[in-house]
Amino acid sequence: MTGQVGVGLAGLGRMGRIHAAALAGRCSTARLACVYDADPDAARAVGAELDVPWTASYEELLDRVDAVAIASPTGTHAPLTTIAAAAGKHVFCEKPISLDRATTVAALDAVEAAGVVFQVGFHRRSDPDWAAAAARIHAGELGEVTFFRTSLRDMAAPNPAFLSGSGGFFLDVTVHDLDVARWLVGEVVEVHAHGAASDPAFAALGDIDTAVVVLRFANGALGVIDNSRSARYGYECSTEVMGTLATARIDAPHVRGVEWRTPGLASRDIARDFEERYPWAYAAELDAFARAVRDGTPPPVTGRDALAAFDLALAADESWRTGRPVSPEVFV
Amino acid sequence: MTGQVGVGLAGLGRMGRIHAAALAGRCSTARLACVYDADPDAARAVGAELDVPWTASYEELLDRVDAVAIASPTGTHAPLTTIAAAAGKHVFCEKPISLDRATTVAALDAVEAAGVVFQVGFHRRSDPDWAAAAARIHAGELGEVTFFRTSLRDMAAPNPAFLSGSGGFFLDVTVHDLDVARWLVGEVVEVHAHGAASDPAFAALGDIDTAVVVLRFANGALGVIDNSRSARYGYECSTEVMGTLATARIDAPHVRGVEWRTPGLASRDIARDFEERYPWAYAAELDAFARAVRDGTPPPVTGRDALAAFDLALAADESWRTGRPVSPEVFV
Amino acid sequence: MTGQVGVGLAGLGRMGRIHAAALAGRCSTARLACVYDADPDAARAVGAELDVPWTASYEELLDRVDAVAIASPTGTHAPLTTIAAAAGKHVFCEKPISLDRATTVAALDAVEAAGVVFQVGFHRRSDPDWAAAAARIHAGELGEVTFFRTSLRDMAAPNPAFLSGSGGFFLDVTVHDLDVARWLVGEVVEVHAHGAASDPAFAALGDIDTAVVVLRFANGALGVIDNSRSARYGYECSTEVMGTLATARIDAPHVRGVEWRTPGLASRDIARDFEERYPWAYAAELDAFARAVRDGTPPPVTGRDALAAFDLALAADESWRTGRPVSPEVFV
Amino acid sequence: MTGQVGVGLAGLGRMGRIHAAALAGRCSTARLACVYDADPDAARAVGAELDVPWTASYEELLDRVDAVAIASPTGTHAPLTTIAAAAGKHVFCEKPISLDRATTVAALDAVEAAGVVFQVGFHRRSDPDWAAAAARIHAGELGEVTFFRTSLRDMAAPNPAFLSGSGGFFLDVTVHDLDVARWLVGEVVEVHAHGAASDPAFAALGDIDTAVVVLRFANGALGVIDNSRSARYGYECSTEVMGTLATARIDAPHVRGVEWRTPGLASRDIARDFEERYPWAYAAELDAFARAVRDGTPPPVTGRDALAAFDLALAADESWRTGRPVSPEVFV
Repeated sequence: MTGQVGVGLAGLGRMGRIHAAALAGRCSTARLACVYDADPDAARAVGAELDVPWTASYEELLDRVDAVAIASPTGTHAPLTTIAAAAGKHVFCEKPISLDRATTVAALDAVEAAGVVFQVGFHRRSDPDWAAAAARIHAGELGEVTFFRTSLRDMAAPNPAFLSGSGGFFLDVTVHDLDVARWLVGEVVEVHAHGAASDPAFAALGDIDTAVVVLRFANGALGVIDNSRSARYGYECSTEVMGTLATARIDAPHVRGVEWRTPGLASRDIARDFEERYPWAYAAELDAFARAVRDGTPPPVTGRDALAAFDLALAADESWRTGRPVSPEVFV
Repeated sequence: MTGQVGVGLAGLGRMGRIHAAALAGRCSTARLACVYDADPDAARAVGAELDVPWTASYEELLDRVDAVAIASPTGTHAPLTTIAAAAGKHVFCEKPISLDRATTVAALDAVEAAGVVFQVGFHRRSDPDWAAAAARIHAGELGEVTFFRTSLRDMAAPNPAFLSGSGGFFLDVTVHDLDVARWLVGEVVEVHAHGAASDPAFAALGDIDTAVVVLRFANGALGVIDNSRSARYGYECSTEVMGTLATARIDAPHVRGVEWRTPGLASRDIARDFEERYPWAYAAELDAFARAVRDGTPPPVTGRDALAAFDLALAADESWRTGRPVSPEVFV
Repeated sequence: MTGQVGVGLAGLGRMGRIHAAALAGRCSTARLACVYDADPDAARAVGAELDVPWTASYEELLDRVDAVAIASPTGTHAPLTTIAAAAGKHVFCEKPISLDRATTVAALDAVEAAGVVFQVGFHRRSDPDWAAAAARIHAGELGEVTFFRTSLRDMAAPNPAFLSGSGGFFLDVTVHDLDVARWLVGEVVEVHAHGAASDPAFAALGDIDTAVVVLRFANGALGVIDNSRSARYGYECSTEVMGTLATARIDAPHVRGVEWRTPGLASRDIARDFEERYPWAYAAELDAFARAVRDGTPPPVTGRDALAAFDLALAADESWRTGRPVSPEVFV
Repeated sequence: MTGQVGVGLAGLGRMGRIHAAALAGRCSTARLACVYDADPDAARAVGAELDVPWTASYEELLDRVDAVAIASPTGTHAPLTTIAAAAGKHVFCEKPISLDRATTVAALDAVEAAGVVFQVGFHRRSDPDWAAAAARIHAGELGEVTFFRTSLRDMAAPNPAFLSGSGGFFLDVTVHDLDVARWLVGEVVEVHAHGAASDPAFAALGDIDTAVVVLRFANGALGVIDNSRSARYGYECSTEVMGTLATARIDAPHVRGVEWRTPGLASRDIARDFEERYPWAYAAELDAFARAVRDGTPPPVTGRDALAAFDLALAADESWRTGRPVSPEVFV
């Protein structure tokens, strides 16, 4: 196959529209072939705006394309994945595959049985900054990794409706860092999570908006993740990997390459959310998916990677609830 | 008109391939509709690679599209522009329009007579960093501008074949900064250029590879440009605009948001050439052109802007040769 | 009293020589009045080098000055403090006061009974960067603190002789961060320490060279400390305090305000040890001590502060050994 | 001679008080031995404040010390230097030695005839940042220097009384950069100055507050200085030296190692004047002077260096007035 890979986009909420913008305007290998939403008005509006076919029938979407990107509500990820796999379509699926482990495993089994490409939306793996660092780390430039540290913080909490279906702090937020930890360092054998509520609204719900998760890697290294839903100053996503030969720090908080100087002060704008920080990561992950479909290259994040991060997030949740360290093996 | 604007690309050398990559993979409003090169092998190869129609006939290109992007050798910019305008096609043209002033003016007259959109490739006007700063500067956040400083430096000189047809240092390099000066500050009424050859190869040709150009703006402010073809450490493109209320510094030398720490040293990769530094600027300028075609918005750089920068570059060249300050008005 | 305060310096090992250099050359309120070491050759050499009186008799030192700075081996800190206090002399004492809690408390009781000024050498409290941030934090600019994060890492482990008398990782390294945590945020009510040995030499001794310590503050905020004896790339000392109104990041890794650019790379020298990083902090803490003596201003770190940090370090050590969270109250 | 060198300070205006603070509190080799001012009240006040002897008689000052630092009004620099030299005293003199060339030369002749140490107050030569870069540049790490760029900008103009006696823009401001140019690159054979008044108050006086000075070095390299008395955002002092092997950038605008993050913004405090930027440079230059006196090491800036920079500043002034390039040789 040559040329661009037409991708059908399922789900046109916030993440769906981010993927639509990437497919329509920033991707080189993938292109937006058709949009679907269960709400025909939403599908029609996006189709008109981006000048692409639209449908409110998932079957029709599958008829028109060889590959789908699923960004619908979380509860529909697994069924839409399974239906697409059964139809022999390649699937890019937003994380999480499901909030239920058995459902997740069943969906993975389905795509593996169908032999289609399957990729999960851990976008940081495709971000140009993280990918560049990862290439050098995987080439051995750090020597042996001895310590890992990462921060992922949202400026403000999502709305309560999203929160209630998010699977909780660790499945929603920490899971990204757990995937990055595995990617850059290797398997995590134990997690120990500590949480707090800096915002009384979270405390009132028995929920947390801040967490520190201590990791032990299979190679003996320590790691630490800090997460927040209430960082307030902006969106933070930064990672440090220390090794015996070198240390890599990945960070790019500034929105633009502009410094503003006013009397006595030098200032720069910083990103306020992931959408502002990661436009190219979202495009790059869909292009990587399209290359996997077109050229047979391996997708940057497999379903098994997603399951491993999911299990670590479950372990973190269990650890937070019990106060004890937890190994992800208990869930297997 | 809605949807993407199909652009025909004329010329598939280095700049042509940069534009092809942008149109095929990074643009949202523009898309690559057809590629043309006088060399059919070159046209066929790019067409196959990017899965788009190709032709070795400029007339056929014009038949297939409503808008062209011209990135052919400098000497063909004006004739291809004029032919396209006569055919009622919108034109994006790489700089310079011509190395000859009368030819430049004639091409501008042709596009104006035809009433088509015409935009020249001063890509920094569309770069996200410069554009963000310009928006705030034009909104008055600096107060009155009192000083302007900019550096544009290539890591290494282009090959001799390119140099011989480049129009000389000021028309090839400095012209970019002269356009930025006019854009961010306003009209330049006098230039005073000083040159030197840091590389003996340039001295042997009676040419220069380093220049400092002092500007006087219509509002009385001073400005200074420094340029080099032999910076050796990397590609530099940075600008400072000082005003009575604030000062803006525009700079983004680092290739990636990664710092590498080795014993006693913190280091980051820096860009080595404009292609590495400006992928999104090249995409953004073509999208701006497509919006001008589709929506009637004004292009970010008009032909008259290009002529003004051209006249300032001629004035700089004359100033360098005579050692005296020169006003651009003498060329009008 | 006006003018400079003459300080007698006891102990001329590594820390003693750092204090000697500060007193002789960087302090404004304190000055070096006399040096003492139990080894007369060491005392004579430093006295000659710095052109100040010297003695191998602690009593003679006390006779000559009103204030002493104690930087002798750890085991002598408490006895020299007690003797000085009994003689009515003001005391600046390097940390730790003692590795034994009862001895520490007894020394504190002695200085309190004597009514002399007593300050402990947590130098970061006097560093210009941390002090500037602390002033703004204490003035309420962050709002309520919601999260605290700090890194303290040595480039390479000290020699085994030092290690064996250091009191262990938490009393030697982490105690600095525990003091900073209390200073910038407030009381810590629980610590949970995790350790690892990245260098097999530490593992062989049953010791660690890397730790992550999770803190819970009295106000409910979470905090996290990471420490290393084997960072390899340099000396790291950085702190972040997140609040409801703003977040402060304190960091100054670069040795000099110079960037070096070589082909494709921008690099800066970073500090390799605390002596290189903190010359002005060591001078400033002695000047603060001198002002406390001369003007009656409160010292920046009291004995009770030192005891509180000591108790937190003991709690961290206990937590590391047991795997459980520990409250510092258990030691009181 | 061993130990600290007692320095007598003459003149207790703004610069005098900066030197007093350095001698009393930041120097290691130099110490403040006595203060003198023609105004006895000023001398008495500083003497009391710093607990040192004072006098309103310059002769008495010379009787008490072997070395003086002259920071009195400009017009008295040369006579006080000559008197001290005649008395066999070593002299550190603030710049300029005089606004008159013949007087400058006569003073230099006097100190040379007396055989005393003579150093002029170009403090940047002793600043830790510039000195570190200079050491590497002089060791050849840049290869051959091909371009030089420096900015020196004051936040706001000094008061009119100071301005009227300052010798004009180039002798007051630019002279610092001319000295740095000679120090880091080598002899300057031609200067071409361009000036403007961004503040109407300067225009009304026929004076300027902004200048761009283009330099040609003996090795053929170009250089450019930009200066301002009205930068408004803060105090700028930054330098770039480009060479065939590497490029050095010297800059340290931030007052403290603290970044403040507020919603959407990362900001840092920047220096507002030279006093805030250079406390350690002022101390280091006096320590270098003291070492020259005590140990016979060469002073970092000789009288002949000062004369060379003075001649270049005169050339810049002449160039600005005539619009033509000027060689400094014309003044010799």
